[in-house]
Amino acid sequence: MLAGVIGATGYAGAELVRLLSGHPEVTDILSASVSHHGESIESVFPQFVHARLGTLLEPADLIARSDIVFGALPSGKGEAYAKACLDRGVSYIDLSADFRFDEDEEAYRAWYGKSYDYGELRKRSVYGLCELNREKIKTLAGQGPLIIGNPGCYPTAVSLAAFPVMAGAAGVVPSGYIIADAISGVTGAGRETGRAYHFPECADSASPYKVGSHRHTPEIFRNLNNMSGPDTRPRGGIQLVFTPHLGPFNRGILATVYFPLDGCGRPAECRPAAAELAEKTARIRDACAAFYHDEPFVRVLPAPLAAATNRVRHSNYCDLSIHLDQSGATLIIVSAIDNMVKGAAGQAIQNMNLICGFDERRGLEALPALF
Amino acid sequence: MLAGVIGATGYAGAELVRLLSGHPEVTDILSASVSHHGESIESVFPQFVHARLGTLLEPADLIARSDIVFGALPSGKGEAYAKACLDRGVSYIDLSADFRFDEDEEAYRAWYGKSYDYGELRKRSVYGLCELNREKIKTLAGQGPLIIGNPGCYPTAVSLAAFPVMAGAAGVVPSGYIIADAISGVTGAGRETGRAYHFPECADSASPYKVGSHRHTPEIFRNLNNMSGPDTRPRGGIQLVFTPHLGPFNRGILATVYFPLDGCGRPAECRPAAAELAEKTARIRDACAAFYHDEPFVRVLPAPLAAATNRVRHSNYCDLSIHLDQSGATLIIVSAIDNMVKGAAGQAIQNMNLICGFDERRGLEALPALF
Amino acid sequence: MLAGVIGATGYAGAELVRLLSGHPEVTDILSASVSHHGESIESVFPQFVHARLGTLLEPADLIARSDIVFGALPSGKGEAYAKACLDRGVSYIDLSADFRFDEDEEAYRAWYGKSYDYGELRKRSVYGLCELNREKIKTLAGQGPLIIGNPGCYPTAVSLAAFPVMAGAAGVVPSGYIIADAISGVTGAGRETGRAYHFPECADSASPYKVGSHRHTPEIFRNLNNMSGPDTRPRGGIQLVFTPHLGPFNRGILATVYFPLDGCGRPAECRPAAAELAEKTARIRDACAAFYHDEPFVRVLPAPLAAATNRVRHSNYCDLSIHLDQSGATLIIVSAIDNMVKGAAGQAIQNMNLICGFDERRGLEALPALF
Amino acid sequence: MLAGVIGATGYAGAELVRLLSGHPEVTDILSASVSHHGESIESVFPQFVHARLGTLLEPADLIARSDIVFGALPSGKGEAYAKACLDRGVSYIDLSADFRFDEDEEAYRAWYGKSYDYGELRKRSVYGLCELNREKIKTLAGQGPLIIGNPGCYPTAVSLAAFPVMAGAAGVVPSGYIIADAISGVTGAGRETGRAYHFPECADSASPYKVGSHRHTPEIFRNLNNMSGPDTRPRGGIQLVFTPHLGPFNRGILATVYFPLDGCGRPAECRPAAAELAEKTARIRDACAAFYHDEPFVRVLPAPLAAATNRVRHSNYCDLSIHLDQSGATLIIVSAIDNMVKGAAGQAIQNMNLICGFDERRGLEALPALF
Repeated sequence: MLAGVIGATGYAGAELVRLLSGHPEVTDILSASVSHHGESIESVFPQFVHARLGTLLEPADLIARSDIVFGALPSGKGEAYAKACLDRGVSYIDLSADFRFDEDEEAYRAWYGKSYDYGELRKRSVYGLCELNREKIKTLAGQGPLIIGNPGCYPTAVSLAAFPVMAGAAGVVPSGYIIADAISGVTGAGRETGRAYHFPECADSASPYKVGSHRHTPEIFRNLNNMSGPDTRPRGGIQLVFTPHLGPFNRGILATVYFPLDGCGRPAECRPAAAELAEKTARIRDACAAFYHDEPFVRVLPAPLAAATNRVRHSNYCDLSIHLDQSGATLIIVSAIDNMVKGAAGQAIQNMNLICGFDERRGLEALPALF
Repeated sequence: MLAGVIGATGYAGAELVRLLSGHPEVTDILSASVSHHGESIESVFPQFVHARLGTLLEPADLIARSDIVFGALPSGKGEAYAKACLDRGVSYIDLSADFRFDEDEEAYRAWYGKSYDYGELRKRSVYGLCELNREKIKTLAGQGPLIIGNPGCYPTAVSLAAFPVMAGAAGVVPSGYIIADAISGVTGAGRETGRAYHFPECADSASPYKVGSHRHTPEIFRNLNNMSGPDTRPRGGIQLVFTPHLGPFNRGILATVYFPLDGCGRPAECRPAAAELAEKTARIRDACAAFYHDEPFVRVLPAPLAAATNRVRHSNYCDLSIHLDQSGATLIIVSAIDNMVKGAAGQAIQNMNLICGFDERRGLEALPALF
Repeated sequence: MLAGVIGATGYAGAELVRLLSGHPEVTDILSASVSHHGESIESVFPQFVHARLGTLLEPADLIARSDIVFGALPSGKGEAYAKACLDRGVSYIDLSADFRFDEDEEAYRAWYGKSYDYGELRKRSVYGLCELNREKIKTLAGQGPLIIGNPGCYPTAVSLAAFPVMAGAAGVVPSGYIIADAISGVTGAGRETGRAYHFPECADSASPYKVGSHRHTPEIFRNLNNMSGPDTRPRGGIQLVFTPHLGPFNRGILATVYFPLDGCGRPAECRPAAAELAEKTARIRDACAAFYHDEPFVRVLPAPLAAATNRVRHSNYCDLSIHLDQSGATLIIVSAIDNMVKGAAGQAIQNMNLICGFDERRGLEALPALF
Repeated sequence: MLAGVIGATGYAGAELVRLLSGHPEVTDILSASVSHHGESIESVFPQFVHARLGTLLEPADLIARSDIVFGALPSGKGEAYAKACLDRGVSYIDLSADFRFDEDEEAYRAWYGKSYDYGELRKRSVYGLCELNREKIKTLAGQGPLIIGNPGCYPTAVSLAAFPVMAGAAGVVPSGYIIADAISGVTGAGRETGRAYHFPECADSASPYKVGSHRHTPEIFRNLNNMSGPDTRPRGGIQLVFTPHLGPFNRGILATVYFPLDGCGRPAECRPAAAELAEKTARIRDACAAFYHDEPFVRVLPAPLAAATNRVRHSNYCDLSIHLDQSGATLIIVSAIDNMVKGAAGQAIQNMNLICGFDERRGLEALPALF
């Protein structure tokens, strides 16, 4: 199979090229770039020197020759490529936000400042969080070429933490108020330079950004709503607060997600006995582990492990650790992913595998890197 | 004035020595170490070679010769030294938890696993968060030598974020449920080696620890309660959830503190107009700035700045940034301190200044380091 | 094929397990540990949770069941295992220094403080720097099970930089005086904790260690001598100065190797014309590239690239960049490897491939990681 | 005294402002910026919020009001300001290369691509490496306002390592061939963003740049020549090779400087007895310590310490450690400075102290930061 990557000079695109180069079903990779076509990819990423990855094509050339196409472009650039792919009869996996909102053009417009150019494409598109939409993706794929809206990095980490709770599978009743506090490595900002990502300005420091108003918020909110059925949706609805931070590391997202439980009103000085707390935590952990039992890429960690970004590095895993605060009234689930793999390129390949009928793990079997 | 530091071979103790060496009222510094006495301090910290800081004394020797004594020891070690100081008529500033709980021996025992050896010392001790207890400290200091329970690093960062809200000075009605999500640099773990602090195990990573059960929780809880008067205390009481994380940097604590506001029930898709949100945020920010107007070491940042640990590095400042989430229903205050300065040694010197009647800023005037 | 790794709880051993798990010819991996047998490997490396890597065996058990055995142990521990392997008829790839000195027991004793326990094993052992000894390894492997002395990390980086010059293939006449100045990431220190590797002690810093006396010196010296034939050996012999440094990063070694050229005596203010210098540099670069033309894992970088550790990360490549100083009188070759891959586990697998008759690249095809 | 800083929005300029703000003889600081005048300095460096540092002036305004002026501008911009200062009768301390070459306009032109605009200014200028030119500076200062060419960061680190050897004070006879291999933190690149300083491109990596051709080379060369008198200059002259590297840390330069000794021809396998080597090293170390005995900012470290950048952090110290390679034929001196302090702003203040007749340590007494 010949896989094409548009936007191969960005971080997510290059990571795709790297991961696809080790995929056993992919015989060759084509790369395209809007701004660098005609150059070699190693002129942009000298890591790839000697790798014979060929010349960067124009996107149209690439689409004309690929069996499946990935678009790793800024949001707002993907629709025309998606259309061209469908017209040619090949599937398109989009890593931007352009296909993450399905029919909800209003939410897309509100947060990304742009209307759909080809709204009808959403009839053939699906949000590609496999743990949420696996059956939808398979069904659509059975009907012909399709478009995948590959999830955002933060939404992946936060949604996978929240799903067992939202699905009513964790054995607790959440109040509906959810705080997701997350920190990302600097690769999340992409390859473009900026003062905030200048080494001396971000090394040895931590800080939040877009507090309470990051545009991944509506995507997370929608996922949580979709996972909660009519029976399990919190009575007052879901109220989500999401705060991203920047940390001085390259890869990884850590999300600490707080679920105050219904009736959570006991003052903090009430401390249930340690044994009682541990037993309740174990019950919830077991329930979450059961919920994800068949998922190849979600690991519910055994106690006393806490999720850490360096344990999923270079892998497609999402690690989850389950905790109760000392009062037992707030459930805390910590989620760790590699933002470039499960948060971007790896998840896109997981979608490709699903579309093509390969084992979902194909090309993504590598154990996490130790460092 | 001759200042003595017991525990000078630990990180907080050595930072004290360094800061005191630049204090204009301190003519000389004595250092003591329980395990290294007889050696030079530069044999432990080669940074100090050529500085002529003298030999590490036994604690008793140091107490016998100092005009004021700092104890930078693990919790559970300070009471005897405190007693010896009072007996000799000099004040003792304790950087451990031993004097942070005042008369509440039960809380201390529950979280630190030890009873008081000399309970009566609490008649002469006061919790040294100047922004909370300045008048108490001054009053006690007016009556003779005293003991300061220097605050913990996380409690300092979180309490200063929460005080305007708890005091009813921010112009909002908090629900009483508070989530404090914090990340610390690795110096917070001290000088003792451990697998978790081995460079390859913590570089390039982020992870939580002691989720929901860190022993700084009761200290924060008590501070928040003390700051909220009978009129401003949330109806259902305060319910605090505190989660610390470890990040790959040396200095600094960043705490992101969430205050769901009373009646906070609007679903996340409700977005107030941007102008309305900005105006409401500005009002709260101004109120917080007014609350801290006379505090020399608390900076309420103007919009659009967000607190960042690299902006308070090597300074005694606590920076606060004020935010509302997009629904306007959750107030988010982000707090940044240097954990070794405002979170330990700097705050101890601030207490010394207060006790001795010096300007509170003496010896702590340095601007934050740029990197 | 069933591969066994003794010492799987160290960094090099665990990296071996990780890389072998992706090797297409390896059907299963056994792990052993002297100190942790009976435990699971994920109890030591939680990264591997869910990976079903089995229980850590006793070394003897592992040897009894493996088709090939890797020893990733401290120097001085490998001979008995090597003997047991040969006795059982399987090959042993040793990652310590125990088999790097062949018959030169004196050099081994002088630098490692220990005599050979089973000196006769050297009849079946060979130093496993494939770029130096490929034919020897193949020949010995054709005669039955053998022992590989897998090269040290610094010797790999420095030797590969120096080989074209020592072999007389670079078109220059070196004076024989060689300075190798290298810096390593902290994983090179292994998994054992120590003050020097405590995050706050080594983050944000650089420093040398074992200046001029590191025990990799004689290994490098021997390699350089072996590569220089009677015709190309510098007249005065080789004189090597080697200084390692520690840098605040996880993976990678960068070695900057200086070759003052014969007759190098022009004072520094003499600057040849830029064009002349560039042309001479290009000639040497081309010669080095030709020398390594058939090597799968050595990349001589095109101008103006300089070798950098982040361009070989997670790969088995050694990158070389070729420079002349401004006077044209000193050749400078910069070498970058991933110390855990080409400097340890990857090179060991390269040796396994050679022994087993696989393509040398098998299991090592991954492109360098971008970050 | 009123000190003015032109270029206060660059890293060196802002570090100057920070250090001057703690200088006991400086009553006020004025800042100017070519591109940001009219703005506040804290709009560029939010670290300085609340510090009341005033508005950024136009350079001419600043010169008109200051008692001494620092220029922290890119090379090629300083001459007009220097002239204006002299015309007004105040001294000018230039942190660029514009006044580092004295009468040697040709060297300046060759390496910086520009002629002198006001060549005659060199009659009133002096190269400000106090350890080399203290008496010259004092003499010139006694005659009226003057210009200081503040040394480059690498030249400071390398020259101070080499001076005892060049002056014939180390008790060895150097061959004249000198290799200086240095690594700098990223602040050395300044505040302007660039791909090479984008966090994901330089974190967790090391690499050389401008190999053998960095423009600090002629400055170092000149210093070494100036320090070596007719009696001590190596017979064949000095031949310097200098290679800078970039490392993933903020502050600091480490320079490892190799001096092959005259007659250095013994092959590396010759190892003098350890005791002999140690004794010879101690003799050289003592000689170097004696050479620098009266220097307030040079610390010759006792054995077995090696210089490390984290031991001089935030201080004006240059730490030197003295080593011999195992053959005894190469002297290795390792030098560590904080590139922003001794390598830029601190050294500029040292010059100011010298000019103004203050104790050279004034405002620079702070002990090195621990982390």
